[in-house]
Amino acid sequence: MSADAGLRTVDEHLAVVLDGLGALEPIELLLLDAQGMMLAQDVVAGWPLPGFDNSSMDGYAVRAIDTRTASEATPVILSVVGDVPAGASQRSGMGPGLAMRIMTGAPIPAGADAVIPLEDTDRGLARVALFHPVRTGEFVRRAGEDLPEGAPALSAGAVLGPQQLALLAAIGRDRVMVRPRPRVHVISTGSELVDVGTTPSFGQVVDANSYLLTAAARDAGADSYRVGIVPDDHRRLLDVLESELLRADVLVTTGGVSMGAYDVVKQALSELGTVDFVRVAMQPGKPQGFGQLGHGVPIFCLPGNPVSALVSFEAFVRPAIRRMLGKSVIGRAVVQALALEGAQSPPGLRQYRRGVLHREAHGGYSVSFAGGPGSHLIAAMAAANCLVVIDEEVTEVVAGSRVTVIPLLLSQR
Amino acid sequence: MSADAGLRTVDEHLAVVLDGLGALEPIELLLLDAQGMMLAQDVVAGWPLPGFDNSSMDGYAVRAIDTRTASEATPVILSVVGDVPAGASQRSGMGPGLAMRIMTGAPIPAGADAVIPLEDTDRGLARVALFHPVRTGEFVRRAGEDLPEGAPALSAGAVLGPQQLALLAAIGRDRVMVRPRPRVHVISTGSELVDVGTTPSFGQVVDANSYLLTAAARDAGADSYRVGIVPDDHRRLLDVLESELLRADVLVTTGGVSMGAYDVVKQALSELGTVDFVRVAMQPGKPQGFGQLGHGVPIFCLPGNPVSALVSFEAFVRPAIRRMLGKSVIGRAVVQALALEGAQSPPGLRQYRRGVLHREAHGGYSVSFAGGPGSHLIAAMAAANCLVVIDEEVTEVVAGSRVTVIPLLLSQR
Repeated sequence: MSADAGLRTVDEHLAVVLDGLGALEPIELLLLDAQGMMLAQDVVAGWPLPGFDNSSMDGYAVRAIDTRTASEATPVILSVVGDVPAGASQRSGMGPGLAMRIMTGAPIPAGADAVIPLEDTDRGLARVALFHPVRTGEFVRRAGEDLPEGAPALSAGAVLGPQQLALLAAIGRDRVMVRPRPRVHVISTGSELVDVGTTPSFGQVVDANSYLLTAAARDAGADSYRVGIVPDDHRRLLDVLESELLRADVLVTTGGVSMGAYDVVKQALSELGTVDFVRVAMQPGKPQGFGQLGHGVPIFCLPGNPVSALVSFEAFVRPAIRRMLGKSVIGRAVVQALALEGAQSPPGLRQYRRGVLHREAHGGYSVSFAGGPGSHLIAAMAAANCLVVIDEEVTEVVAGSRVTVIPLLLSQR
Repeated sequence: MSADAGLRTVDEHLAVVLDGLGALEPIELLLLDAQGMMLAQDVVAGWPLPGFDNSSMDGYAVRAIDTRTASEATPVILSVVGDVPAGASQRSGMGPGLAMRIMTGAPIPAGADAVIPLEDTDRGLARVALFHPVRTGEFVRRAGEDLPEGAPALSAGAVLGPQQLALLAAIGRDRVMVRPRPRVHVISTGSELVDVGTTPSFGQVVDANSYLLTAAARDAGADSYRVGIVPDDHRRLLDVLESELLRADVLVTTGGVSMGAYDVVKQALSELGTVDFVRVAMQPGKPQGFGQLGHGVPIFCLPGNPVSALVSFEAFVRPAIRRMLGKSVIGRAVVQALALEGAQSPPGLRQYRRGVLHREAHGGYSVSFAGGPGSHLIAAMAAANCLVVIDEEVTEVVAGSRVTVIPLLLSQR
């Protein structure tokens, strides 16, 4: 078909989208606000970990040399000259031949060089009988043995999970520089749309796309915001776009990019920046708009059919969000799976079919299709857990052949 | 060692924790607030999807029979009697031998039974030349073909990702009953603790555990809240616990469960409920407290060393959170990996070592240890991406043997 001449490939369009797109400027956040984000600075330890020599057991601080003859038969008896509580604000001290009761984590008193655990003693209060010798340094955690003062703790690029946040707290960092989540604002356009909660009249459709894309953007790591529905009205759309431009790092519209007569979206956009409307060699998702508005805010104008919107999001918007988050791997993992049924695909287009991926007993995968290729099949899309990719040059998938599958794994929270 | 007689196994303690624990009572949430949560009701379609017969292309609505002789050489010419815009509030109609311009998604006018795409026409305004015939129903999406009215849309237990939220919106559900996220409140106890941002004096330690566990609980799916530090003061602790009991579905304390002399935690707890302090056959994490306070709020009293706290969380608290979320699979996935180095493990205890898991070129996994077994090694813990499990009966892992590994995958957001 001559209309398909000069289509841009999926890979070419993705390259256009990613061209010049980088991680957002770092911001400083409190530790728990930074969870899951990428560190944007190298962090060194402001003090050693542990901060002081301390006991790894509940027991008695002793001098190892005083315990060397201890045994069950002939215990060594030492006078207990006091307790070292955890959190003692100054270092205790004790002389030779003496012992101090000590808790796990409490500082080793001056004059002691080892700890004997409670269970190797008679647990005495004034005097204690030791049933085993201990070696110098035994049950003592040395200051700095986990991390010396000034040592690198975490490097830029580390993802801040629970353990990394714990380390930052332990070395006294209450806030850190991280790559922020891009603010992705989602607008549905179309005079046929009504908001959920309104019963649609004849010819009206409930806006599902803004929910779909807002949730997908959040799942991809964005701080997403559902702007809602804007009717096909030039002035209204212009107002909304101008306002959202001030708040968003990325704008996503859906609807209004077909070839029909009511495409006010394109005109409004042309007044705010440069957006190219192209045809991409994919099914669904052929009509794509991408460009910059205002001071370089990327905007994606996705088709209005829900399946087209999801596939377009996965192909172009999700990688852009991951790039802006600073991720080195921006694409989803793919797997190879055995096709349980056959499918047709138009020549020259990369087809993305919705599928249900199964893990086989032998460890491999198989996949069946969830509904047909129609881009309006929302229920079938909701039953799918993957996209099946049928490459441009493939026009038929035969049952029993291997296909490439993109599992649509959700963030597990 | 006689002190180890009668230890509870990890599996036995987990069974005690999970006994009687179920999913929380469903709550009703707006769609985007329900993202990632589990549906707690069956949902049927309140109307069909699509809601009306509509066009799958931009083109012209026609009667198929009128197009049957059309070809490039001898096109059929039809009069265009108007436009069917998307969102038309009443159904258009047209007579035989006529055509109406129609956009993707717009309702098929009465009298038409097919759509011919723009690119198969001369795109005429008053009259249009058709270059191909179309079959009855071609490029028409039938009302209800995706989901008939009253059909099951989603079942209780479905996890609400972007596609499922889109379907709920499309069928008019603006809010749904879901299993709520358990509210997990985290308290660090210990007079030696200072908050991050305060430079610790001699003998003081920055509280890292409340950050660790609050982040871990959130990553596990909880709505977690860091209460902060409570010193070893009976009255203060009692006040905090009584107050948090009113707000939390689960309480987690860390610290104060060693055998030392300053264990005010146990006493305060005994005044508010029943908490059993037991010794579990694991390393780290041997001292564990678990019980119920007030009107049956589960409380976990985890040891105070950061690594012990993390391992205890993974072994007991995370499964409890997943169970309360209604998940059918509550444990993390495990993999088998080649040990790149050897390790010792005490007899009778299940040892959890921190490790770094590598994916091998051939597709399998190998694992090295991140630091030694010491439960105070926070920096080593932050360098780890997995736990290596050495079973109770194993006392030595030889380099080159296979070990069980729990990858500590983060929620990817």
